[in-house]
Amino acid sequence: MGKKLEDYVITIPDFPKPGIMFRDITGILRSADGFKLAIDELIKRLEGVEFDTIAVAEARGFILGSPVAYELGKKLALVRKKGKLPRETVQKSYELEYGSAVIEMHKDSISEGERVVIIDDLIATGGTVKASQELIEQLGGKVVKILFVIELEGLNGRALFDGIDVESIIKYPGK
Amino acid sequence: MGKKLEDYVITIPDFPKPGIMFRDITGILRSADGFKLAIDELIKRLEGVEFDTIAVAEARGFILGSPVAYELGKKLALVRKKGKLPRETVQKSYELEYGSAVIEMHKDSISEGERVVIIDDLIATGGTVKASQELIEQLGGKVVKILFVIELEGLNGRALFDGIDVESIIKYPGK
Repeated sequence: MGKKLEDYVITIPDFPKPGIMFRDITGILRSADGFKLAIDELIKRLEGVEFDTIAVAEARGFILGSPVAYELGKKLALVRKKGKLPRETVQKSYELEYGSAVIEMHKDSISEGERVVIIDDLIATGGTVKASQELIEQLGGKVVKILFVIELEGLNGRALFDGIDVESIIKYPGK
Repeated sequence: MGKKLEDYVITIPDFPKPGIMFRDITGILRSADGFKLAIDELIKRLEGVEFDTIAVAEARGFILGSPVAYELGKKLALVRKKGKLPRETVQKSYELEYGSAVIEMHKDSISEGERVVIIDDLIATGGTVKASQELIEQLGGKVVKILFVIELEGLNGRALFDGIDVESIIKYPGK
């Protein structure tokens, strides 16, 4: 039997601070087999989903969403930290554990009526993805599915996305 | 005749400061055709190249290198800004126009003797990619090719990579 995707995830206890079990996806990326498995699993979960665009958040989301977009012939909409995008943007501030952060999207990255899938590496509290969803909707797009490689179920981030299809490949019960 | 890749690049005069012509690749990404063209062109330039790993620098490099790695069945080695990688790293400081920056790679992201291709969106002075090359070599890897979507020829960044095959899809004569 081959390895499963979760066998490639590296867990680092107490990073970045005591009590946190950090789930490190670079263990997936450093194996050609692991990386292929991750992207294949994401693609499988989009079978039958009608959409135009994959939205990805800086920076790990770029790694996972980009191959899926290429493989399925879709366009990419970038969600970036403030100040990285050179043209006219919409912005959204969201709460972090300490303080807040601002993300941006180019105004022309989503058109009215576009059907959008968000792909990210991991859902914890879901704050970044929620802010991304709000920006996509502000630009006239509709988020039809949200896909994660890893879900930390103990934080219940998916509760933020009532009415949207949220799916993850690997689920951990804790935080 | 279809559009060429350069037709998708958006040029923004005087960004981020007067005199700079910013070449914005989001114009490529926001078109499924443009994005496919970019990745197909990168893949074409790796025909016949024997290698194990694609190294990508945060964050735009992630977008372009990741689909190529997936398509060619290779692994990915991440070059990240300081403090983003959770396990043991090697670090390199390099000069920016004002001040300096530090990049890191996980120690286990490259193995002794690995043949590595670096893919990035754009070569200007080449500082980040040079520092990446040095980290890869410090880990025992060999950089066998460096691929860019865009090259700003006026800055002559490729002069830093004597003896390495450096290729770019679109060349602009200026800075």
